[in-house]
Amino acid sequence: MAGNSIGTLFKLTTFGESHGKAVGGVIDGCPAGLSLDLDKIQDQLNKRRPGQSSLTTQRVEEDQVQFLSGIYEGKTLGSPIGFVIFNKDQKSKDYSEIKDKYRPNHGDYTWQKKFGIRDFRGGGRASARETVCRVVGGAVASQILENLGVKLYSFVSSAGSVEIPKSANFELNTIEDSLVRCPHKVTSDAMIKEIEQVQLEGDSVGGIISGVIKNVPVGWGEPVFDKLHADLGKALFSINAVKGVSFGEGFSAAKMKGSEMNDEFVQEGNTISTKTNHSGGIQAGISNGSDILLQVAFKPVASIYKDQITINEKGESVIIEGKGRHDPCVVPRSVPIVDAMMAMVLVDHYLLSRTNKI
Amino acid sequence: MAGNSIGTLFKLTTFGESHGKAVGGVIDGCPAGLSLDLDKIQDQLNKRRPGQSSLTTQRVEEDQVQFLSGIYEGKTLGSPIGFVIFNKDQKSKDYSEIKDKYRPNHGDYTWQKKFGIRDFRGGGRASARETVCRVVGGAVASQILENLGVKLYSFVSSAGSVEIPKSANFELNTIEDSLVRCPHKVTSDAMIKEIEQVQLEGDSVGGIISGVIKNVPVGWGEPVFDKLHADLGKALFSINAVKGVSFGEGFSAAKMKGSEMNDEFVQEGNTISTKTNHSGGIQAGISNGSDILLQVAFKPVASIYKDQITINEKGESVIIEGKGRHDPCVVPRSVPIVDAMMAMVLVDHYLLSRTNKI
Amino acid sequence: MAGNSIGTLFKLTTFGESHGKAVGGVIDGCPAGLSLDLDKIQDQLNKRRPGQSSLTTQRVEEDQVQFLSGIYEGKTLGSPIGFVIFNKDQKSKDYSEIKDKYRPNHGDYTWQKKFGIRDFRGGGRASARETVCRVVGGAVASQILENLGVKLYSFVSSAGSVEIPKSANFELNTIEDSLVRCPHKVTSDAMIKEIEQVQLEGDSVGGIISGVIKNVPVGWGEPVFDKLHADLGKALFSINAVKGVSFGEGFSAAKMKGSEMNDEFVQEGNTISTKTNHSGGIQAGISNGSDILLQVAFKPVASIYKDQITINEKGESVIIEGKGRHDPCVVPRSVPIVDAMMAMVLVDHYLLSRTNKI
Amino acid sequence: MAGNSIGTLFKLTTFGESHGKAVGGVIDGCPAGLSLDLDKIQDQLNKRRPGQSSLTTQRVEEDQVQFLSGIYEGKTLGSPIGFVIFNKDQKSKDYSEIKDKYRPNHGDYTWQKKFGIRDFRGGGRASARETVCRVVGGAVASQILENLGVKLYSFVSSAGSVEIPKSANFELNTIEDSLVRCPHKVTSDAMIKEIEQVQLEGDSVGGIISGVIKNVPVGWGEPVFDKLHADLGKALFSINAVKGVSFGEGFSAAKMKGSEMNDEFVQEGNTISTKTNHSGGIQAGISNGSDILLQVAFKPVASIYKDQITINEKGESVIIEGKGRHDPCVVPRSVPIVDAMMAMVLVDHYLLSRTNKI
Repeated sequence: MAGNSIGTLFKLTTFGESHGKAVGGVIDGCPAGLSLDLDKIQDQLNKRRPGQSSLTTQRVEEDQVQFLSGIYEGKTLGSPIGFVIFNKDQKSKDYSEIKDKYRPNHGDYTWQKKFGIRDFRGGGRASARETVCRVVGGAVASQILENLGVKLYSFVSSAGSVEIPKSANFELNTIEDSLVRCPHKVTSDAMIKEIEQVQLEGDSVGGIISGVIKNVPVGWGEPVFDKLHADLGKALFSINAVKGVSFGEGFSAAKMKGSEMNDEFVQEGNTISTKTNHSGGIQAGISNGSDILLQVAFKPVASIYKDQITINEKGESVIIEGKGRHDPCVVPRSVPIVDAMMAMVLVDHYLLSRTNKI
Repeated sequence: MAGNSIGTLFKLTTFGESHGKAVGGVIDGCPAGLSLDLDKIQDQLNKRRPGQSSLTTQRVEEDQVQFLSGIYEGKTLGSPIGFVIFNKDQKSKDYSEIKDKYRPNHGDYTWQKKFGIRDFRGGGRASARETVCRVVGGAVASQILENLGVKLYSFVSSAGSVEIPKSANFELNTIEDSLVRCPHKVTSDAMIKEIEQVQLEGDSVGGIISGVIKNVPVGWGEPVFDKLHADLGKALFSINAVKGVSFGEGFSAAKMKGSEMNDEFVQEGNTISTKTNHSGGIQAGISNGSDILLQVAFKPVASIYKDQITINEKGESVIIEGKGRHDPCVVPRSVPIVDAMMAMVLVDHYLLSRTNKI
Repeated sequence: MAGNSIGTLFKLTTFGESHGKAVGGVIDGCPAGLSLDLDKIQDQLNKRRPGQSSLTTQRVEEDQVQFLSGIYEGKTLGSPIGFVIFNKDQKSKDYSEIKDKYRPNHGDYTWQKKFGIRDFRGGGRASARETVCRVVGGAVASQILENLGVKLYSFVSSAGSVEIPKSANFELNTIEDSLVRCPHKVTSDAMIKEIEQVQLEGDSVGGIISGVIKNVPVGWGEPVFDKLHADLGKALFSINAVKGVSFGEGFSAAKMKGSEMNDEFVQEGNTISTKTNHSGGIQAGISNGSDILLQVAFKPVASIYKDQITINEKGESVIIEGKGRHDPCVVPRSVPIVDAMMAMVLVDHYLLSRTNKI
Repeated sequence: MAGNSIGTLFKLTTFGESHGKAVGGVIDGCPAGLSLDLDKIQDQLNKRRPGQSSLTTQRVEEDQVQFLSGIYEGKTLGSPIGFVIFNKDQKSKDYSEIKDKYRPNHGDYTWQKKFGIRDFRGGGRASARETVCRVVGGAVASQILENLGVKLYSFVSSAGSVEIPKSANFELNTIEDSLVRCPHKVTSDAMIKEIEQVQLEGDSVGGIISGVIKNVPVGWGEPVFDKLHADLGKALFSINAVKGVSFGEGFSAAKMKGSEMNDEFVQEGNTISTKTNHSGGIQAGISNGSDILLQVAFKPVASIYKDQITINEKGESVIIEGKGRHDPCVVPRSVPIVDAMMAMVLVDHYLLSRTNKI
């Protein structure tokens, strides 16, 4: 089935295998008349790029996006925005190690069984390489949100055993100052240390990205099935390696009492807000004007520098060697992907909300 | 926008306000030739029904479903299955308390701002009453899965401060033996005690439902956006009061190392499986044949028997009285809803998977 | 597959077999705050009703629609509008004649082969009875268009061998004055005469409905696939018995030269229009402000009062008797259905057009 | 809105302006394991190519398609097939004549009003250049149908005043022998003569393409809204310049009696067929196993070599000169586009039909 599109009105469709000729996509439904800053789009791609620091894989993907349509003299036309990123890092490598072996926790086995065929080179379509196209879509969406005054932030709040303390204070505009995109300096330093240690061990480690979205107007989200956090949830779960998503108090809410969890409404002048924000900015599936707060849990990267027991296509038990170029912790590089998914879902719901009233 | 449908091939569309004439829906895309056991559908509805025990609201909703189409002589026709449940408990109550006050953590405020109008009676469309239609859709889907040998279970694994210990052993077929749908007897007893205490205090408490789905064939799920757990995630987040969803190790995966998290493939005879199941039965968005394991976190019910400060439609600060008939812990009654959402997503992906290969 | 919904933002889903308990549907995506005149909806249903004149089937279907949700104190809530029409004319008839025989040009054979099962009573889901639900959806859509000043007309322009002459003058508001919904008196009289003759012969006859939509703003229609006339075309072809659809000059355009067909733009004051309207109000898939002109060709009713040779489920050659209660010409009663499909497509595109520009 | 995709399971999304960098698209939902003959795809593109004969525009578009993903070692992977065709014929022409003038019967005016901006170069997205991507999608779909034994033909049955006589005999496999893709030699010669005359006059002329689809199994089509001919109708109306679509007897059916129109079922051995095929192979929206017969009416090309009166963006009356390189009759080159749309709709319905029964 056609599972490579996301969105109803603002819709991204992507294509591309990790080591095929190119990855790319089509952004359909972007409103006409938007002045696009193409440099900002490239900036977002650079944040996702491998090889950006000593803590990331040393593969160098240049990820230069080419826009093929939908933009004229710097403005969107209302027609579909086609784009392509040619794959440059396609060395004719020796794939014999993975050609017929199923790497643990990768998509090798499930894709092979589902389709009866797979492009094993670099993981093919199952590779996180496809997320580069999401970043392009999200970077376009972000510029629509910017015009509306909506601000999106996401950052690494937990990596391995290190996490930002509940009581910590930090500035959201310092995210990019940190090598691991953690805006709390002390925590950031501890994370770097832990990731370096994991890297030395040839292992990998997971982490959590927290999202904060400010200035979302009241009224985005389409109950009962297309609730704002339901669509955000789907978009975030579609990112490789995500195992958990939560909003506001998240799993902690399960242990709270109603009298603790409820956010009292308060009013100042013409502004209605809530005293607390345990709900995370969404109530009954609709944004309530408070900051949208969410958490995304990533499992550790499956590729490690350790030999593992697995099976091959014949069903024989085999050893798969730990080699290649991998991130010890993929979470810092996933920040622009979380940004992208949040932005696209929000723009889709913004456009939908334009049709709510007569 | 039209947000009241879920599914691509097996699609449920619902309608109905809490205190309107009826709730109901249309199940479209149910394959023809399915022998439907209508009693089983009613059984599922009864599990969701208020007033089923001393721990649930004492409102009595009979929830008798009437099927209007799509079934002939006990078999599905392939045409849409329309159904309706007339609302019986529509006393002409005094709604003055909530007519122009926004109850904290309810949808009153966001719906009013979004649409400029709302049916305040019983929460209108934002009420969990609409989930009764999901149970109907899910109960039909369940019978398709049953034919395929797929077995779904969901149960309360945590309520308030009480949770099933990691080391506990229990039988999934004892879920219904527990008043709170917790299959671990000792934990169940403790939960009941805690919920009774909360009830006495006029408060409410949240909880977690765990899902286990057995015998799902390898190959369900449509990457990259319609991954099996992405669609499950959306479906589960669309249930009222859900604040978190996770798969396999979930948020714990964020703290794990790759060498711990990876599920080694093992082979016995013709069967390939994994030694561990940290992934929760889904890899790269596609079922891998292991049990699908998921967790759903519910916040406490917003309606409590305590006075709360809020605002009214004029933006004035007012007191809202705690009264009405509410569940102290809604999680036990949410079990059939989680079952329903899991079943519908699975059937949708089962049908999609029929079109994967030439 | 789920083929019982139409529309993207304004979406109608229908259900119901001809002789099942009820037909009904859900209108999702109707904007909130619309004051609905329910009598006007019933009026449209009455126009479709069998038994309304000596020229239509003498079956009496009362077709009393009950709205179950989505409307509160006369206004739409923005939530889905569920409705149901219980089938009253469900006599326990003798169906032995059609139970296992395939009536020529009916859906009996194709439905049986497609689904392996069918509800043969009255044609089941393949019966034109389902169109009653379209009329409800269309009547709601019409009230949105009315608010925008858009006016829809459809009328019988041809029945059997009789058609309105090209040179004829007539008033669109006289459609309902004619028993056959032909606003040209002389033609109407001739049509009635021809249909009466066909009725006497126990035969049936086809016809053409012409649609005229006035005051559509420039800019509705979403190229390249969801062109306004492409979506209108699909909607009209989905009506039972439709074999042809055309816009503007239609099939005659195939014989014209560019210099004849082109509609020159002219400007008067601030208004831009075209000197001629060969295009029928749509250019490049987008409304251009001129009247939308379309034609819909209906084949004759398949049910006739003559014995016909056919086969039964065993594949044996059998005679099927001509009996029952059928329209000699179904086109007059199809006028409200054409109205409905036009209205729903237009409202959907109106809502979509709200999202075209930044 | 996102109107640049067509299909539910087999879905084509396209992008590209006529004189932008490239046109291209994504085919999503193509089943895995299909051996693709890329030469056949290029052959179809060559049939659509301008400059292929003295009767077509002398613009030379090479239309070399590059596949970027979804295919590995000659077989489809089940992942999206991205493709691109770079625009070579992008001379920096003088566009001053059309930059601010609205060409009659083109999309200039409606696109400008809809989006507030347009790429005027060569008609931008409204140009028939986008149909090249449809041909790619259709050529992939055709290879799926070929495997199933389904055969599609379309040919020019009418051009200007010349049409194939009803009584004519001809072979469908001779379509490509004719310069105008008319398989009836005498008619073909007369068409060529008429088109040459029209060309000399600097005018253009319309025509009709007839489609014949053989060996479609019984059971494709999803009532009630996604009837097979409704989806075919939409797909065909989405082709530039199409003003009419009909099936079987089409508009003639409106003048027929039921006793003439009905197709009697006949049975020979295990085969059920109909004696006549007035229905055109589709009954009640579902294929009945007979040949699918359809007609598509094209208006004459709007671009002619004659000066025309029109208006400019300021609303002033101006003369637009007739120049450029245009087809006097676009219908012969539209044959591969009709083929493509038919093929894609059929494959979509074939995949959908796989899910009809339990």
